[in-house]
Amino acid sequence: MTTADWIAADWGNTNLRLWALDAQDTVLAEREAPQGFSTLEPGDWEPLLLATCGDLLAPDRATPVLICGAAGSRGSWREAPYRTVPCLPNGGAEAVAVAGTDPRLSVHILPGINQLAPPAVMRSEETQVAGFLAGQPDFDGVVCLPGTHTKWVHVSAGEVVSFMSTMTGELFGLLSKRSILRRTIAAEGHDEAAFLAGVEASFRDPGKLLNALISLRAKAIVAGLDPVLARSTLSGLLVGADLTAARAYWLGREVAVIGAEPIAGHFAKALAAQGVPVRMAEGHAMALAGLVAAHEVLA
Amino acid sequence: MTTADWIAADWGNTNLRLWALDAQDTVLAEREAPQGFSTLEPGDWEPLLLATCGDLLAPDRATPVLICGAAGSRGSWREAPYRTVPCLPNGGAEAVAVAGTDPRLSVHILPGINQLAPPAVMRSEETQVAGFLAGQPDFDGVVCLPGTHTKWVHVSAGEVVSFMSTMTGELFGLLSKRSILRRTIAAEGHDEAAFLAGVEASFRDPGKLLNALISLRAKAIVAGLDPVLARSTLSGLLVGADLTAARAYWLGREVAVIGAEPIAGHFAKALAAQGVPVRMAEGHAMALAGLVAAHEVLA
Repeated sequence: MTTADWIAADWGNTNLRLWALDAQDTVLAEREAPQGFSTLEPGDWEPLLLATCGDLLAPDRATPVLICGAAGSRGSWREAPYRTVPCLPNGGAEAVAVAGTDPRLSVHILPGINQLAPPAVMRSEETQVAGFLAGQPDFDGVVCLPGTHTKWVHVSAGEVVSFMSTMTGELFGLLSKRSILRRTIAAEGHDEAAFLAGVEASFRDPGKLLNALISLRAKAIVAGLDPVLARSTLSGLLVGADLTAARAYWLGREVAVIGAEPIAGHFAKALAAQGVPVRMAEGHAMALAGLVAAHEVLA
Repeated sequence: MTTADWIAADWGNTNLRLWALDAQDTVLAEREAPQGFSTLEPGDWEPLLLATCGDLLAPDRATPVLICGAAGSRGSWREAPYRTVPCLPNGGAEAVAVAGTDPRLSVHILPGINQLAPPAVMRSEETQVAGFLAGQPDFDGVVCLPGTHTKWVHVSAGEVVSFMSTMTGELFGLLSKRSILRRTIAAEGHDEAAFLAGVEASFRDPGKLLNALISLRAKAIVAGLDPVLARSTLSGLLVGADLTAARAYWLGREVAVIGAEPIAGHFAKALAAQGVPVRMAEGHAMALAGLVAAHEVLA
């Protein structure tokens, strides 16, 4: 194994993903570790990083490591204060150096972005937006990043103008795994018609959500609702509620959905059903592209 | 300790509450046990009942025990099939006998009520409604029973005409204890102005809920939102979303809120803020009154 010229990492609440790169930004290796802000104490980050990529580090020099995500949250490895909109999504110029690391490491953490009114925060999605803009510098529209907390980011003239967040992914997880609906919801499977009907139900009657959710349980008891249809309807209800909350963002704009399958595809289908022109990009690839773009600014 | 003439019990998903009564339905003793459908296997119910009230049973005869709630769910102690609306809330005539119990016990379980379209189910709330109507036989309006799954019950001419459910209480628990908001939400405390502002926000813009929830976290990070205000706002947002979903029930009707403080009071305040005439009744007292009324039908 050759050693890395530098390492790019996306380190969030629950997961580390890193790429070892050569001087031409070609990927030499990609690694993952299933730990992040939700489980790590401040002293845990460096040992876990070394355990994940120590074999990729040259023994006789400090390898640059550039990290985006919750690693820069307060109470995390090292706080990297938020920048405030409007601003460039590429935060490379304001990356924060982490002092006192192993001599084989030279770690910088990218800042997140906040918005004061209405209040909103993000960490790592801005880097995915930067990666997307590196390939589509003239994009003017809205970037949708579905996830635990979906982000809707209005991009114009290369800047993040405004953004908002929704709790869709986390709520889906809580409802399908930890609520009474867990008895009713299949662990996997997707029925597109049921999904789109759920989206439409949330669109048609957004105020009915708290009834629509528990009605899935009643439909299972009273009418034998199939668990895969229940899962797909739940997903549709929440994606529909997400799109309803974000209507001011996507209405009349071009939307780029950045994320992982299958959820990115679900958002794209729901948007397309509203007549919105959608393009798609893969989330990890955009994170890497954004880290490369930030590394160029920092270097 | 004298022995009971009969025992009334409300046995739900997480809790048993029972009353030992004499022949005049005077309460001799009240007991609780923190177990129910969510933790008990079918063979666990009778031993737990005996452990909770065995000392109140006469040794030489079978004491009638009348139970409402999830004890009658499928997969529970003994299924008591649902009755279907429209029907009387008092299910005493269709109580199901539990065979093969200890000779000191003669157990009957009350049925719940279901509705085929739109699908809805309830167990125990119908008995609280029966208890309320026993004291207010001419009530014509809507009974609101806030809880894990709030019920809105349209009562007319002594019958349950229709009802619906919302997931408000369970969602509040999941969000405040198991979601990212747990870092932001105080464990207790209530600010009425923040609560009512949350109700109003859900009323004004019901489609924004998934954004309003996660925005509490952003407000804490960006603007130092106080945890008690965050808790009160979350409660208001969800109660407002509940009222929004149930608008067709309470609009233009008199509403009786049956439940326990503080949540019953929160619902009453939110309804009053919409100009709805509200009366209140205590939930456990109504369950007991409903069990007494059902016992009279059964006996």
